[in-house]
Amino acid sequence: MWGGHFADGPAPLMEQINASIGFDKRLYAHDLAGSRAHARMLAAVGLLEARERDAILAGLDAIEAKIEVGEFDFSPSLEDIHMNIEARLTEAIGEPGRKLHTARSRNDQIATDFRLWLRDVIDGVDGLLQDLQRILLSRAEAHHDWVMPGFTHLQAAQPVVFGHHLMAYVEMFGRDRGRFADARKRLNESPLGAAALAGTSFPIDRTATAEALGFDRPMANSIDAVSDRDFALEFLAGASITAIHLSRLAEELVLWSTPQFGFVKMSEAFSSGSSIMPQKRNPDAAELLRGKTGRIVGSLNGLLMTLKGLPLAYSKDMQEDKEPVFDAADNLRLCLAAGTAMIETMTVNREAMRLAAGIGYTTATDLADWMVRALGMPFREAHAATGRAVKLAEELRLDLPELSLDQLKSVDERITADVFDVLTVDRSVASRTSFGGTAPSCVLDAVAHAKTRYL
Amino acid sequence: MWGGHFADGPAPLMEQINASIGFDKRLYAHDLAGSRAHARMLAAVGLLEARERDAILAGLDAIEAKIEVGEFDFSPSLEDIHMNIEARLTEAIGEPGRKLHTARSRNDQIATDFRLWLRDVIDGVDGLLQDLQRILLSRAEAHHDWVMPGFTHLQAAQPVVFGHHLMAYVEMFGRDRGRFADARKRLNESPLGAAALAGTSFPIDRTATAEALGFDRPMANSIDAVSDRDFALEFLAGASITAIHLSRLAEELVLWSTPQFGFVKMSEAFSSGSSIMPQKRNPDAAELLRGKTGRIVGSLNGLLMTLKGLPLAYSKDMQEDKEPVFDAADNLRLCLAAGTAMIETMTVNREAMRLAAGIGYTTATDLADWMVRALGMPFREAHAATGRAVKLAEELRLDLPELSLDQLKSVDERITADVFDVLTVDRSVASRTSFGGTAPSCVLDAVAHAKTRYL
Amino acid sequence: MWGGHFADGPAPLMEQINASIGFDKRLYAHDLAGSRAHARMLAAVGLLEARERDAILAGLDAIEAKIEVGEFDFSPSLEDIHMNIEARLTEAIGEPGRKLHTARSRNDQIATDFRLWLRDVIDGVDGLLQDLQRILLSRAEAHHDWVMPGFTHLQAAQPVVFGHHLMAYVEMFGRDRGRFADARKRLNESPLGAAALAGTSFPIDRTATAEALGFDRPMANSIDAVSDRDFALEFLAGASITAIHLSRLAEELVLWSTPQFGFVKMSEAFSSGSSIMPQKRNPDAAELLRGKTGRIVGSLNGLLMTLKGLPLAYSKDMQEDKEPVFDAADNLRLCLAAGTAMIETMTVNREAMRLAAGIGYTTATDLADWMVRALGMPFREAHAATGRAVKLAEELRLDLPELSLDQLKSVDERITADVFDVLTVDRSVASRTSFGGTAPSCVLDAVAHAKTRYL
Amino acid sequence: MWGGHFADGPAPLMEQINASIGFDKRLYAHDLAGSRAHARMLAAVGLLEARERDAILAGLDAIEAKIEVGEFDFSPSLEDIHMNIEARLTEAIGEPGRKLHTARSRNDQIATDFRLWLRDVIDGVDGLLQDLQRILLSRAEAHHDWVMPGFTHLQAAQPVVFGHHLMAYVEMFGRDRGRFADARKRLNESPLGAAALAGTSFPIDRTATAEALGFDRPMANSIDAVSDRDFALEFLAGASITAIHLSRLAEELVLWSTPQFGFVKMSEAFSSGSSIMPQKRNPDAAELLRGKTGRIVGSLNGLLMTLKGLPLAYSKDMQEDKEPVFDAADNLRLCLAAGTAMIETMTVNREAMRLAAGIGYTTATDLADWMVRALGMPFREAHAATGRAVKLAEELRLDLPELSLDQLKSVDERITADVFDVLTVDRSVASRTSFGGTAPSCVLDAVAHAKTRYL
Repeated sequence: MWGGHFADGPAPLMEQINASIGFDKRLYAHDLAGSRAHARMLAAVGLLEARERDAILAGLDAIEAKIEVGEFDFSPSLEDIHMNIEARLTEAIGEPGRKLHTARSRNDQIATDFRLWLRDVIDGVDGLLQDLQRILLSRAEAHHDWVMPGFTHLQAAQPVVFGHHLMAYVEMFGRDRGRFADARKRLNESPLGAAALAGTSFPIDRTATAEALGFDRPMANSIDAVSDRDFALEFLAGASITAIHLSRLAEELVLWSTPQFGFVKMSEAFSSGSSIMPQKRNPDAAELLRGKTGRIVGSLNGLLMTLKGLPLAYSKDMQEDKEPVFDAADNLRLCLAAGTAMIETMTVNREAMRLAAGIGYTTATDLADWMVRALGMPFREAHAATGRAVKLAEELRLDLPELSLDQLKSVDERITADVFDVLTVDRSVASRTSFGGTAPSCVLDAVAHAKTRYL
Repeated sequence: MWGGHFADGPAPLMEQINASIGFDKRLYAHDLAGSRAHARMLAAVGLLEARERDAILAGLDAIEAKIEVGEFDFSPSLEDIHMNIEARLTEAIGEPGRKLHTARSRNDQIATDFRLWLRDVIDGVDGLLQDLQRILLSRAEAHHDWVMPGFTHLQAAQPVVFGHHLMAYVEMFGRDRGRFADARKRLNESPLGAAALAGTSFPIDRTATAEALGFDRPMANSIDAVSDRDFALEFLAGASITAIHLSRLAEELVLWSTPQFGFVKMSEAFSSGSSIMPQKRNPDAAELLRGKTGRIVGSLNGLLMTLKGLPLAYSKDMQEDKEPVFDAADNLRLCLAAGTAMIETMTVNREAMRLAAGIGYTTATDLADWMVRALGMPFREAHAATGRAVKLAEELRLDLPELSLDQLKSVDERITADVFDVLTVDRSVASRTSFGGTAPSCVLDAVAHAKTRYL
Repeated sequence: MWGGHFADGPAPLMEQINASIGFDKRLYAHDLAGSRAHARMLAAVGLLEARERDAILAGLDAIEAKIEVGEFDFSPSLEDIHMNIEARLTEAIGEPGRKLHTARSRNDQIATDFRLWLRDVIDGVDGLLQDLQRILLSRAEAHHDWVMPGFTHLQAAQPVVFGHHLMAYVEMFGRDRGRFADARKRLNESPLGAAALAGTSFPIDRTATAEALGFDRPMANSIDAVSDRDFALEFLAGASITAIHLSRLAEELVLWSTPQFGFVKMSEAFSSGSSIMPQKRNPDAAELLRGKTGRIVGSLNGLLMTLKGLPLAYSKDMQEDKEPVFDAADNLRLCLAAGTAMIETMTVNREAMRLAAGIGYTTATDLADWMVRALGMPFREAHAATGRAVKLAEELRLDLPELSLDQLKSVDERITADVFDVLTVDRSVASRTSFGGTAPSCVLDAVAHAKTRYL
Repeated sequence: MWGGHFADGPAPLMEQINASIGFDKRLYAHDLAGSRAHARMLAAVGLLEARERDAILAGLDAIEAKIEVGEFDFSPSLEDIHMNIEARLTEAIGEPGRKLHTARSRNDQIATDFRLWLRDVIDGVDGLLQDLQRILLSRAEAHHDWVMPGFTHLQAAQPVVFGHHLMAYVEMFGRDRGRFADARKRLNESPLGAAALAGTSFPIDRTATAEALGFDRPMANSIDAVSDRDFALEFLAGASITAIHLSRLAEELVLWSTPQFGFVKMSEAFSSGSSIMPQKRNPDAAELLRGKTGRIVGSLNGLLMTLKGLPLAYSKDMQEDKEPVFDAADNLRLCLAAGTAMIETMTVNREAMRLAAGIGYTTATDLADWMVRALGMPFREAHAATGRAVKLAEELRLDLPELSLDQLKSVDERITADVFDVLTVDRSVASRTSFGGTAPSCVLDAVAHAKTRYL
């Protein structure tokens, strides 16, 4: 394969560690697309005759057909997808096949293939994120006035509505889409024509191949073109942040599925039972969403480490770039799809949420705020007075709204009966009308706005 | 501090693990800015009187002055920068100080402070990246025709020019700037007014505080506003990719500084000697640039892990967000400044580079390409024939241009004397005029274009 | 500092990136110990006179005294702890100070210092882990028959006793101690005398310095002695696994502190309140234990990355080894101490646990096992029949023991009234007497055994 | 599969995310071993009749035979290896198959299988590490007096011998073996019989199954038995450190293969050529060894993240434990085997090494040490004087031994002609006879000692 320079072939162990065809065959469609664009350009600038170009294009079509029906025999001794296709092409069409590698190298080929593949993945991920936002928006609208406890430190803090909580995730996944869109723009430049690393003396037209492949422009520096794997890192970083978001959602679904919380019940379709405990109904899918965060972040971390300290231009270490990206892409897509389906099919228990919303003196802030508004107390004083009210209620084993006016007056004698208006969870959420707040009316506004922005 | 609800104070061990003032005092200027904007807004919507606002503003100014001269006594028992400042303010100005916390919480305060601080860091990093690009561009222009070996697999592959190699880094750092700019846009929304997590019933104006602080808009969801740390992750991801770029540059500087390569000599100002070997001159600064990649990526990894699986909204785990970002920001800035100064002050050995450029049959591709062009040979055949020529030269211990015409004809009899025109390293680089190629003329074009784009 | 070879001093930026004294001064006691051992050995082999040795020892004592009262002025221009001490020594005692560096280098010095320091840390961590085991054992004994739900997938699975649950952590922390003990053994070899990397021609006695410093033996290869940082990695790996254990415990404490679970209440000493919500009592310390896992694992990851691909022997990148280890050691020790204190001071709610133990058909396995034992049913059949019983109970909104015999017979007619004996949570836990099982008697046995093994 | 409790089956998406059979079928042999031991024990304690046991054993044998010839049809709808085997067994032998799951759960089964599998891997890795040590020892012996430059900061520091350099790796891999051996000991406890998490009321004999499976003892706590994945983490940590060692070796092989260094030439069997540059001979295998460090460390990092914050006992997240360990084990074994073969087949260029050993004033330390010994100068003074000698030699473009006595006297007039004895690289290495030093005699001693210890 390397011409007359090598006397011996590789050791079997070498083939095992070196050949990438086992995983890079997955890039076949993008490799073929790159070869087609290259062949057409070579003909356009006079480096191939029209009939040679046509023979190549027909040969590539035949190879694609074979691959798609599973009849292409990928050979590890040909190392990678590029050589497998080129070798087969030459076998099939002869001399024109031997001309296809003019003015290109596997170094720019693989960079081109990988970018094209990842661009498709990003487009798919964007759609999946949108699907997830769509179902979150739909449930947020439906539950825009279902009261639940808002937690900080996993302690009930203030009442919120469930729709508002879901809308937080709409925002997170919206940022994720923004990150992927930015990564896509930066990725969308063509390395093709950088050749091994120095460019070429053939009069190629890199703009033409870039355009044919949907790239915005050719990359500006041939060494960078074959050395750069930022696009893979940036995708993995985006995927990692999305995975963190999914892990937080999944953690909540797992918590909320416990009998202790009882806020949601995952559908049977996304639950599992136990081989020994017949009563079990486990939120396995949610746990896997949470658990798979590790492998996605592990892939980011691994590729960063692989690239650390590599001199320019291409080093073989960089062959280790694809498997982590493939694995992260597969798992991210699976998690997004499963997350969407889980949210769609879960049952929400309005009563359990509402009940929990009132536990833990969650309207204490409302009491403090009322003192500020109605009594003109500085917030810090109101905060302290409310603290005393909570302590009293705890001692009496009462909830805040169950304290009598006299009891409240023992905390601060200026308190009047008007205070009872703010101590229910419904009044609490309804009052939080600041922009982005949890008042049901705000949530409906936010849903409407997000539909316009994201769907 | 928590009002009347707590009977006991914290254990000393608790104060040690819990207090953040040891590191978050660094945010004082941004905390003060947030308080000023909040106070002005409270007055504008009628929640503070003008004289209360003015007392607060004067009090905050006095605190800032104290901090800046190092006379502010930060107290761990007040936990964090917010409480330290608020407590001192109230001490100084009385009742208006106790009103400042109306309609806000430490949850939205810290998110606001941290975003403001990080926005400044990003602006600084952008400037440092531009400085680095500037010096790279200047040296690329100066060395636009200095021939050196282009490496793949750290084996000499084809001759390139040093300016072209440097321009690869200009591209990398340009993408880094793009990533930070995108992160800055996503970061630049105001959490202020989200209060603890649910928004507030006070008639606050979040758009006003957002504008006053230079944010593009208030964040759309109050739960997300206090739960989100994407901005920290995205900064760390960008910093990690930049660190990878620096590590590659540093690796090359270390390699090139060896007597074996001898391409560059780091200035004494960025070298160290040895406590035992008097002759040593070590490229310590370059090694540290490479080595510090670990801690920056470690910080990214650590924060991802910390955030994994956290339920909404704020959990105390999130207090662990600041130190990794501080450390990464400090080290990234230091590395960028040191990298710039190293590149600026290093000596480049043109002769050593040129000599190395010709070692290792680096013009073999030129020979193959010549056969394609001049003899109409398919590339694969030309590649094989060239392989035989290289083998012959190796056996004869000659360089490629030292082979006689007869010797070359023994490889392929169609070869003519014209071939010698392409076998020198200067002819090789001059011929690579494809867009983004290493021809000196292309490099000058690329420098000119990049100056317009980046400086 | 480098002798006459350097004309210029370092740039200020270089001093900033290069000097390690800001953090390695922490190693002063171990650096002094190493110097004492070295001086004594030099005298013993005739390389120092007795009076020179004594002058050095006295000088080192004086320096130690100064450092300990905070009067030693560490200078960044002297780079590191070694040069700071040596320079001061020479200033104080003259010529003998200039002889101390005979037959050693900073390369072997720093490796020696760092190993000695880390050995102390490991000993301290072992003690802290033992403290934590002690309090867990004490509570496990006290709660050896307090029934609680055992969870899988965070769904109630089978009743267990709280003491048994705590004993799982005793096992985990026991393994952690084993890992640290193994790391200590591997660490405990002396690099001193490897000099820069090649050993020395002076007739030193490495066994003597090794013994004086409590090392088991001198390291066998001088290049390895100065290149190796396995001991730091192995410590960080052990610390990371311990941190994972702490994070699991902390997650449970956070969960159990919710009103929904209500199993435990953290003491006020390890809780915090809220600046805005006066009722809050947050398990901050537990959250921080969980959150700090990120930084410890981040340190492991960072140092692995820093070391990746470094050629032998010493490279300056390795100066980045100390800060991650310092940070991990500090945080690990803090977390262990805080974890111990939290467990010690928390209140456990026996009633809430017991109540929860019965929710969710947790004795379903007992029913199935009873059918196997009493009716001779194959387990799979019993499992299926029990599944039907659970379904029936769910439909009737009854608990398993509340089903009538007739209702149970509708599931399988062979069921007899004896079955009710196994359906209570107390009978369930008491029955699980297999080795390592949750029967209170087994737990007491396990506690007794663990006390012998670990305390 | 879950008995009568579930009305619906899983969604296809659920099967995709949930089923582990795609990867855990790899554990079939260990799963069968566990089932055999369990069946024998059930019979021994009277829970199975002898004929039932025999039917089960025969059935398991038949299944093993089918799997090994590739005729077993693994079904994703049966989720995992345990259910696939159990279901097939019951299909084949009827009722006894339905009894096999008595007193066990998939939770303890998978922990058992995974430990058994990993124990085998560790044994294999130990053998591979020993092979690598063997070849390193053999080459170290052969090259025990081949002089080369010893590097610090990749600058020539002092001459060493190649055998000494290789022996540093023997030490590193020796520590790796120690770590794996320790991990094996901690791993080698049996979770079997912990059942779901609480133990069982059946009178099982956990010691018997532990012994049958070669475990040292049953695990002491049933909750820990199903929750613990320390063994996987500890293996990954050990693998990561080994990978770091391999990456350092690989970096050196890549460096040494450049024409600039030219110390070694990788065999063709472990090199690759180029698709475009016919002269290339790239050390691909070495680069891959270095590059694969990333994925191994990424796996460690990923699993740490997955386990962070998981409550006890089993959570489905833990299903994500196997793929990273499988991938790390496969790649580690491949790298070790390839590394051994590379070292075995590479050519070492004695002349190039020797030549390089003298470049860069590498005997400067010898000069300084001579002044200490011969002139009684304090080391610091000798260091400074040598610095001046190096500076002089640089100015005169001479090597140190090429300086005349007069020139040396201009540095310090006490220098005599005896000094020339120590300035050659051979004298330098021969003199470094301190324990662990690079003197060829020491290297031979070290090889002999290591053979006894490691082979």
